[in-house]
Amino acid sequence: MKNTKTTKLRPRRKQHRRKPARFSNREKLKIMVVGGLEEVGRNCTLLEYGDDIIIIDIGLQFPEEDMPGIDYIIPNLSYLKGKEKNIRGIIITHAHLDHIGGIPHLSPKLGNPPIFTTRFSSAVIKKRQEDFENKRLNIKEITKDDQLVLGKFRVEFYHINHNIPESLGIVVHTPQGTVVHTGDWKFDYTPVGGEPADFSKLAKIGDKGVLALLSDSTNSDKKGHQISESEIGVVFEKIIKASSGRIIVGTFASLLSRMRQVIEIADKLGKKVAVDGFSMKSNLEISRKMGYVKVKPGTLIDMKQVDDFPPEKVIILCTGAQGEGKAVLMRITNNEHRNVQIQPGDTIVFSSSIIPGNERTIQRLKDTLVKKGAKIIHTDMMDVHAGGHAKADDVKLMLLLLKPKYFVPIEGNRFLLEENAAVAESMGIPEKNIFVADNGQVMEFAHNRGWLTNNHIKSDYVFVDGLGVGDVSQIVLRDRQMLAADGMVVVITLIDGKTGKLVGSPDIISRGFVYLKENKGLIEDTRKLVRKVAQDKDKKSAPDNMYLKNKLRDEVGAFLFKRTERRPMILPVVIEV
Amino acid sequence: MKNTKTTKLRPRRKQHRRKPARFSNREKLKIMVVGGLEEVGRNCTLLEYGDDIIIIDIGLQFPEEDMPGIDYIIPNLSYLKGKEKNIRGIIITHAHLDHIGGIPHLSPKLGNPPIFTTRFSSAVIKKRQEDFENKRLNIKEITKDDQLVLGKFRVEFYHINHNIPESLGIVVHTPQGTVVHTGDWKFDYTPVGGEPADFSKLAKIGDKGVLALLSDSTNSDKKGHQISESEIGVVFEKIIKASSGRIIVGTFASLLSRMRQVIEIADKLGKKVAVDGFSMKSNLEISRKMGYVKVKPGTLIDMKQVDDFPPEKVIILCTGAQGEGKAVLMRITNNEHRNVQIQPGDTIVFSSSIIPGNERTIQRLKDTLVKKGAKIIHTDMMDVHAGGHAKADDVKLMLLLLKPKYFVPIEGNRFLLEENAAVAESMGIPEKNIFVADNGQVMEFAHNRGWLTNNHIKSDYVFVDGLGVGDVSQIVLRDRQMLAADGMVVVITLIDGKTGKLVGSPDIISRGFVYLKENKGLIEDTRKLVRKVAQDKDKKSAPDNMYLKNKLRDEVGAFLFKRTERRPMILPVVIEV
Repeated sequence: MKNTKTTKLRPRRKQHRRKPARFSNREKLKIMVVGGLEEVGRNCTLLEYGDDIIIIDIGLQFPEEDMPGIDYIIPNLSYLKGKEKNIRGIIITHAHLDHIGGIPHLSPKLGNPPIFTTRFSSAVIKKRQEDFENKRLNIKEITKDDQLVLGKFRVEFYHINHNIPESLGIVVHTPQGTVVHTGDWKFDYTPVGGEPADFSKLAKIGDKGVLALLSDSTNSDKKGHQISESEIGVVFEKIIKASSGRIIVGTFASLLSRMRQVIEIADKLGKKVAVDGFSMKSNLEISRKMGYVKVKPGTLIDMKQVDDFPPEKVIILCTGAQGEGKAVLMRITNNEHRNVQIQPGDTIVFSSSIIPGNERTIQRLKDTLVKKGAKIIHTDMMDVHAGGHAKADDVKLMLLLLKPKYFVPIEGNRFLLEENAAVAESMGIPEKNIFVADNGQVMEFAHNRGWLTNNHIKSDYVFVDGLGVGDVSQIVLRDRQMLAADGMVVVITLIDGKTGKLVGSPDIISRGFVYLKENKGLIEDTRKLVRKVAQDKDKKSAPDNMYLKNKLRDEVGAFLFKRTERRPMILPVVIEV
Repeated sequence: MKNTKTTKLRPRRKQHRRKPARFSNREKLKIMVVGGLEEVGRNCTLLEYGDDIIIIDIGLQFPEEDMPGIDYIIPNLSYLKGKEKNIRGIIITHAHLDHIGGIPHLSPKLGNPPIFTTRFSSAVIKKRQEDFENKRLNIKEITKDDQLVLGKFRVEFYHINHNIPESLGIVVHTPQGTVVHTGDWKFDYTPVGGEPADFSKLAKIGDKGVLALLSDSTNSDKKGHQISESEIGVVFEKIIKASSGRIIVGTFASLLSRMRQVIEIADKLGKKVAVDGFSMKSNLEISRKMGYVKVKPGTLIDMKQVDDFPPEKVIILCTGAQGEGKAVLMRITNNEHRNVQIQPGDTIVFSSSIIPGNERTIQRLKDTLVKKGAKIIHTDMMDVHAGGHAKADDVKLMLLLLKPKYFVPIEGNRFLLEENAAVAESMGIPEKNIFVADNGQVMEFAHNRGWLTNNHIKSDYVFVDGLGVGDVSQIVLRDRQMLAADGMVVVITLIDGKTGKLVGSPDIISRGFVYLKENKGLIEDTRKLVRKVAQDKDKKSAPDNMYLKNKLRDEVGAFLFKRTERRPMILPVVIEV
C-alpha cells in the first residue's frame, strides 16, 4: 500500500441554511462568489452591505472540451444591473488572467468604477486593454500599505506570496465584522524576487478578530507545505549546468518568478537567454521596468541570434508548456517557427503543472520532441515547477494566524472546496461555520453570525467568442457539438410556386459527414429520396413550406442514419420559383 | 526536492538503420508493428517470412479530442492486400478491446484466416461479434500448452498475468530465430483467480535463445514492480467494512479480476452485489460460465432489488469510472438511471487509472457526486487500482529470464517506448540492438542479426464512424473541426440563367455561428452584401457559377470575420432558374 493517504471516510457535509428572521436586509452583509463555470466558485467575489458594493477580482476561465469555438468564459454580473451606482470599486488581488481577464468586457458595463490594484498589476491590465477597442479604464494604483474607505467598507491589504509580483490579500472591515479574501496564495519563506508573506501583519489582523476567511482551495487536497521557488532554482541550475546542448524552458507567460530565475542562472553561468511569446515578452518588459527582473547587459538575445551562439550557451524561454496550438514551443516543435527548430541534443524543460484537459496534447508534443532527438524534463521527474497555491499545511498556518469564525473555501472545483473545508474542520472550525457555497449562492452575515442562504444570484455562463460576449447561447453550442460529431447535409429543392411541383433536380451539399467523392451512390440515393418526398408534397402545405421542410428533415435524417449510423444535421431549403 | 527521480540526461538514441545487402529478401524475417495512431506502435504486429505471415492481435484505439464523431480507429492493414493467401493465422494474446477490437472489421477483409486464442478470449470475441452484421469468424481455440505450426513458423505460448483471464505471451520460432511477443503483461506473485506467470517456462525459452523480445511499454516509466491484485483486495475489504452506506465501485467492464474480488469480499461479509453495464454483465457471465468467478447463491442481485436491502448491505459494481457519457455511473449520478440514484452516505470507489484525456470529465463527475453527499475514493487516495502492466523492475526481470539479443518496445506512445528502451539499456542490451520503431516501420532479421530499415508500410489512420470504416478522411475531420469552432453559414442566391441577374432575395441560413434571433442586423447586412456581390457578377462567369461562388465565399467570410472575429464555414449555393 504505497502512496496511501489516510482513509478519509468523513461524513457528508451538512449545509446550514438557517436564515434568522430578526435581521433586516439592510443590516446584513452579503457575500457572493460568482464564477465562470458552475460549481467552480471563483473569478469574482461580491460584497454588499446596504447601498455599498465592492468587487474583488473579475477573471476569466478557459472553456471545457464540450464548448467548441469558445475563447473563454467571464463571470455573470447581471445581479449588478441597476446597482451600478452602488459599486464603490473593483479590487484586483493579482495580475493573472483568471483574476483580471473579465475587466475589458465587464468594467464598461458596470459604469467604469475605480479599479484598485498595485502598480505591477495595473501595468499588466493596461497592457492587455490595448487589445480591446474601448481603452478607457479607471485604475487607481495602491500599495500594500494603503487603506481605502469605500462606502461603509474600510479596506486594507497584506503582502502574500504567489508566482507573480505584488500579489495582495484583501482585508475588508465591514460594519458586521472583518472579512479576509486571500486571492491566490502560498507561503514562501524564500521567494524569488520578493519578500516572504507578512506574517506579522497577518497575526495582527487575526488578533483583532476575523469574521470570515475566504481562501484559495486549488492545492488544498495536497499534504504538507508548498515548495519554495528557490528550491526550483537549485534544480534548474543543476539541469542547466549538466546540459551540453540548448535548453528550452516552456512555462506560463505569467510565471514571472520562474523567468527571473532562469535569467539569473544564465547570468551566473554566462549563458544567453532568448525569450519568445507575445505576452511573456510584454510581462518581462513590465517586470524589468519595475525592477523585478534584473539582467546583465548582453544576456538577453533575440530569437534571430540563437544560431550565432554555440548550443551549450543558449537558453530559450518560451510559452507553450501546455501544448497550446499557437504558442512558441508548439511552433518550434512543428518546424513552424521562423528562427528556431528542434535539434538533437536539445533539452526541453516543461516548467508548469499540467492543466487538466491538456494531458493528451502535451503527451503528443513530448512524443514529437523525443522523436526529434530532444530530451524531456517534466515536473514528474524533477521539481522544475512549484505551484503558486497553498497546500493543506499552508492553509492550517493561515487559520492559526487569522483565527476566523467562519471559513469559505473559494477558488476550486467542488471537490477541492470540500477538501479545503475538511482542512478547516481538522483545525477546529465547526462544520456549521464552513460554507461550501454554490456558484452565486448568497452568504449572509449579521451580528457576528453567518449563514448560507438558499438564494442564488444569476451565475450561468457568459461565453466570449471572438468579438461576441454572451451571444453564443447553449443552442449555438449544441449546434456546434452536433456539427462536430457528424457534420451536416443541406438539401435544396426548387418548387413551382403555383403548382407546388418540384422544379429541376434537388441539390445535396454536405460537409463533415462522409467523403463525397467516394460516396456518390449514397448522394444519388438521397437525391432520389428527396425527389420522392417533394413530389408526394401535401398540397395543404403550411406557410413557408414548413411541412415539406420537416418531412425532408425527418426522412433524409432517418435514411442517412440507416445507411451510415451517423446523424448529420439536416438543413432543408425549399425555394419557391 | 521531494518526488525527485534521478536525473536522466541520457544521450539521444541513435537509430541503427544499416541494411546488409548480402541477404536476399526471402531469407529475411520482417516484423512490423501497426497501430491505430501514428507514433503509438500497438494494436497489431505482423511477422512475415517468405510466403508466410502471422498477425498478433488486431485491436482498436479510441480517438483523440481533435477527431470529433469518430468511434474508434483500427490498424491500417492495406499492406496485406494481395497477400491474403499468405496469412497463416491471427493470434490473440488476450480479450481486451485494444487487442481484439479490429477483428470484426478486418478479419473479413483478410479472407477470414483462422484466429487462434484461448477459450475465454474466444468467448469474448464471439459475444462482441454478435453486434456486427457479418457473424462469421474462423476461431480455433487453443490452450497455453499447445503448439502450432503456421507455415515456417512454429508458435508456442506461455501463461502471463494481466487483469483479464487467460492472457498469453507468444513465442514464435522462425527460421531466423525466436521472437517473443509479450502481449500486455505484469508479474503478479499473488494474482486473483489464476496462477502467477510461468517463470519456469520463461526461463526455458530464454535458455534456448531469444532473438528478439517485443514488450509492453505502458508502465515502463514507473519504478519498481507493479502491485498485486491481492493487495487491492485488502484495501477493498477495509473500505467495504468501514462503510455504513452503499458502496458503488466504478471500474472497466473488462477488469475481471477486480469484479471477482469485490464479489468475493461481498460473499465473505454477507453483502449483496448488483452489477450493471452491458459489457460488464456479459463479461461476468462468460467468467462465471468458465469458473473464473464463483459466487454464493443470493449474493448477486438485480439493480431493481437494490432498494430492498439496507444501504450497508449493498454494493453496486458498474462501468463508468472514466466518466463515459452513457455508462452506468454517469447515469446514476445524473438521475438518469431507472433504478438507482445517488443518496447521501454513498461511497463511490473509482477503481481504475484515469485514461489521459478524461481528467476533466471525471473531475466534473466527482464534483456532482460530492455535491449530492457522496464520498469519493480514488486511486490517488488509496490503492484501489492496480495497473495490468509491467513496471521497470518487471521488465528487468523479464529481460533476465528471456535474455533476448534484440529488444523492441511496443504498446505505448513514443515517450514510453523510449523509457522502455532505457530500461533495456540499463540491463546491458546495447543501444544498437534496441529498435524504437515508428508505426509501420519495417524491422528485419537474418542470420542472427537485426536492423531497423527505413521502409515503412502504410499505417495511417483508419477511422470507424458508425457503419463506415475508412470513409471519414482527414478532409472530413477538418470540416468537422471547422464546423465545431465557428459553425457555418449557407448563402443561397437565385440567378436568372439567361441574364445572369439576381432573382428575388438571397437566403441566409446559419447554425452554430451566432444566435440568429438576436443578430437580425448582422443577417440583414450579410444579405445586402450578397445582393451586391451577385449584382456585380462578372459576365464571363466560369461554369457552375464557380466565380460567383468563390467571390461570395471570400467576401461573406471576410465581412463576418470583421464583424465577429469568427470564421464560420461559408457555403455558397448559386441556383440558375
